[in-house]
Amino acid sequence: MKPLGPIPAGFDSLDGELAIGGQSASSLVERAGGTPLFVYSSSMLKERVASLRRAMPARLRIHYAMKANPYAPLLELMGSLVDGLDIASGGELKMALAAGLDPAAISFAGPGKRDEELEAAIAGGITLNLESVGEARRAFAIGDRIGKTPRLAIRVNPDFELRGSGMKMGGGAKPFGVDAAKVPDLAREVITAGADWRGLHIFTGSQALDADAIIETQANVLTLAANLANEIGADLLHLNMGGGFGIPYFNGDQPLDITAIGTALEERFASLPEELENTEFAIELGRYLVGEAGVYLTRIVDRKESHGTTYLVTDGGLHHQLAASGNFGTVVRRNYPAAIATRFGEEPVEEANIVGCLCTPLDRLADQAMLPHAEVGELVAVFCAGAYGASASPSAFLGQGPARELLV
Amino acid sequence: MKPLGPIPAGFDSLDGELAIGGQSASSLVERAGGTPLFVYSSSMLKERVASLRRAMPARLRIHYAMKANPYAPLLELMGSLVDGLDIASGGELKMALAAGLDPAAISFAGPGKRDEELEAAIAGGITLNLESVGEARRAFAIGDRIGKTPRLAIRVNPDFELRGSGMKMGGGAKPFGVDAAKVPDLAREVITAGADWRGLHIFTGSQALDADAIIETQANVLTLAANLANEIGADLLHLNMGGGFGIPYFNGDQPLDITAIGTALEERFASLPEELENTEFAIELGRYLVGEAGVYLTRIVDRKESHGTTYLVTDGGLHHQLAASGNFGTVVRRNYPAAIATRFGEEPVEEANIVGCLCTPLDRLADQAMLPHAEVGELVAVFCAGAYGASASPSAFLGQGPARELLV
Repeated sequence: MKPLGPIPAGFDSLDGELAIGGQSASSLVERAGGTPLFVYSSSMLKERVASLRRAMPARLRIHYAMKANPYAPLLELMGSLVDGLDIASGGELKMALAAGLDPAAISFAGPGKRDEELEAAIAGGITLNLESVGEARRAFAIGDRIGKTPRLAIRVNPDFELRGSGMKMGGGAKPFGVDAAKVPDLAREVITAGADWRGLHIFTGSQALDADAIIETQANVLTLAANLANEIGADLLHLNMGGGFGIPYFNGDQPLDITAIGTALEERFASLPEELENTEFAIELGRYLVGEAGVYLTRIVDRKESHGTTYLVTDGGLHHQLAASGNFGTVVRRNYPAAIATRFGEEPVEEANIVGCLCTPLDRLADQAMLPHAEVGELVAVFCAGAYGASASPSAFLGQGPARELLV
Repeated sequence: MKPLGPIPAGFDSLDGELAIGGQSASSLVERAGGTPLFVYSSSMLKERVASLRRAMPARLRIHYAMKANPYAPLLELMGSLVDGLDIASGGELKMALAAGLDPAAISFAGPGKRDEELEAAIAGGITLNLESVGEARRAFAIGDRIGKTPRLAIRVNPDFELRGSGMKMGGGAKPFGVDAAKVPDLAREVITAGADWRGLHIFTGSQALDADAIIETQANVLTLAANLANEIGADLLHLNMGGGFGIPYFNGDQPLDITAIGTALEERFASLPEELENTEFAIELGRYLVGEAGVYLTRIVDRKESHGTTYLVTDGGLHHQLAASGNFGTVVRRNYPAAIATRFGEEPVEEANIVGCLCTPLDRLADQAMLPHAEVGELVAVFCAGAYGASASPSAFLGQGPARELLV
């Protein structure tokens, strides 16, 4: 037996089934026209942003990193809830504008921006988080050519990292951002070039569940930003402090203590160094805002035994749930939270492996899980599917195609 | 410094650039309209099938497993070169029929076949490789309902596996196929039900480079097939012996000795047990047939230093090259073969990391590789990109979209 991850709070049972937004899993599947299906709960998204605002200082702006989930209806909703949007490509820029988001509230980070992406961003009045001296100079040249002043911030590669984060994005040599020591020179070059100088972006890691580590990192970020502002010798209009807030995926994971983080940040904001007194602060969050609000529903197509092991074979799989299958930045696969959606809350009575429909042993959704007895035609739910699910999986693999998606 | 994998034989230099099918990398990119671009060499595909036929017994049929690469022009070409096609979904069936392949030469394996997929296959005269008793009974019912006799084979879960294979697909409890001990009963049920009984499919693993292991496994497969045919008590019309032929990806990998495999198989075929004397034999290969014939070309967008490390940031990445990035069934990432395509054959002069354009530390194409000095605008080639590249990667991730593809 292997444990399943913890099911996020907020999911109820209705007529013995998992309910999302007050509707049973099977009625949602019927409404969407079939499985596999991602369902996102708008009430959970709203509650997540609201609870974050309650915990954080009023001064802190909350940005949504749309890479976590670019599904258009969800993106529109998130745009109405947050103060800014972080994008990572020209493709995401198009989606953001199509969703009606304010260009002035969009910033664009990413280490390999093509000239046409820089041009679209500059023309649209998007803030570019510069990743290198070379990118800065390309932005100057494009701004000159199209007669538009670029809005430029610098992404800093700090000399520290977010302890315990799932993905470290600072500390030592990195492809992201400009080494902290080189930032003042580049910032002065940006200002001298006549660009619209916006400030700094300091991203140190992601998917951390340790509040103390985030508190320590945020303190380091503020200190670094103040030092850099001082060296640059110009006001720091905006500081994107990065994100890093994680969600529990695996057995034993505890939810992040955002109250502790908010209280510590409130204290920091009350005694800011002079360089940051007028700065606008933002955090950018993707997974934390949307991850727990999404559920992946897939139907059991076959139930079989092999050498005494029970397999529930579903019509979904790693082509929609690459991370849950253990194939995305994971060394040892562990079970995400999962359940038989058509028997939600029933006591587990058997050990079974839930697999996808792909003809590869990589396609695993739950290993040796204790579950209620489920038959062909019943629905499986994989939780924590709101972030890095549909858009982060190889949906064309084995001729499968994308899953349905629904915001309720 | 970390070694790069071995560049497959058959790639030349033209005007200092990598040439594929007699055309330089930059001219191919121009022809395709830009990067990132997968280029597949039809001459290498033809030569690969031809050399395999020379090595294998004339009696052995060669099938293409289209999951490796379903790109329509490549699929059409492969259809003209091989004797049969293996598909893994209803989506692949549509692509196969659109490419003009003969339904009678198509077989369909996959553990999670939906009713509509079974129906499309039965209606089209495709052979179904049954994965379970439940699937068999669904096939009978669908055949009855639509008034068409299903063509049915059984996929066997053997009690042995392919030693040293990248993915083991037999031996112990598995979601694939029917446990060998249960096959005779199911085969008799298929025959009694009046279905068109086709035979057996025994797949034991993939991506093996050890000829002795494949020889041993093929011997085991023939013995198991003969025993099962004897127990079933009916002629074995067809035996799909699986695949498993690997290609070298990493430093130190040696090409598979297909001559040794062919010689051993010829000997086996010369002394077949009575049960297999009239059997048609096939092997199904995907990666081995198409993997080395493909190259992924991506352009350098930025060149930067961070703490003394050089990064070449490209406009491609893991959204097209998930396996090369080390995120697909890999525990420890190693470098695929890669080169600066615009300086092909030049001596390496510097150590650099080649990364993709995605804003994630997972997006790595070559770590600490010794390379010629390359500037922004030059082209990087990642080899062994013909199989499990474009279709097996999350192309929508971070708003990127699919790569271009070209068969030359």
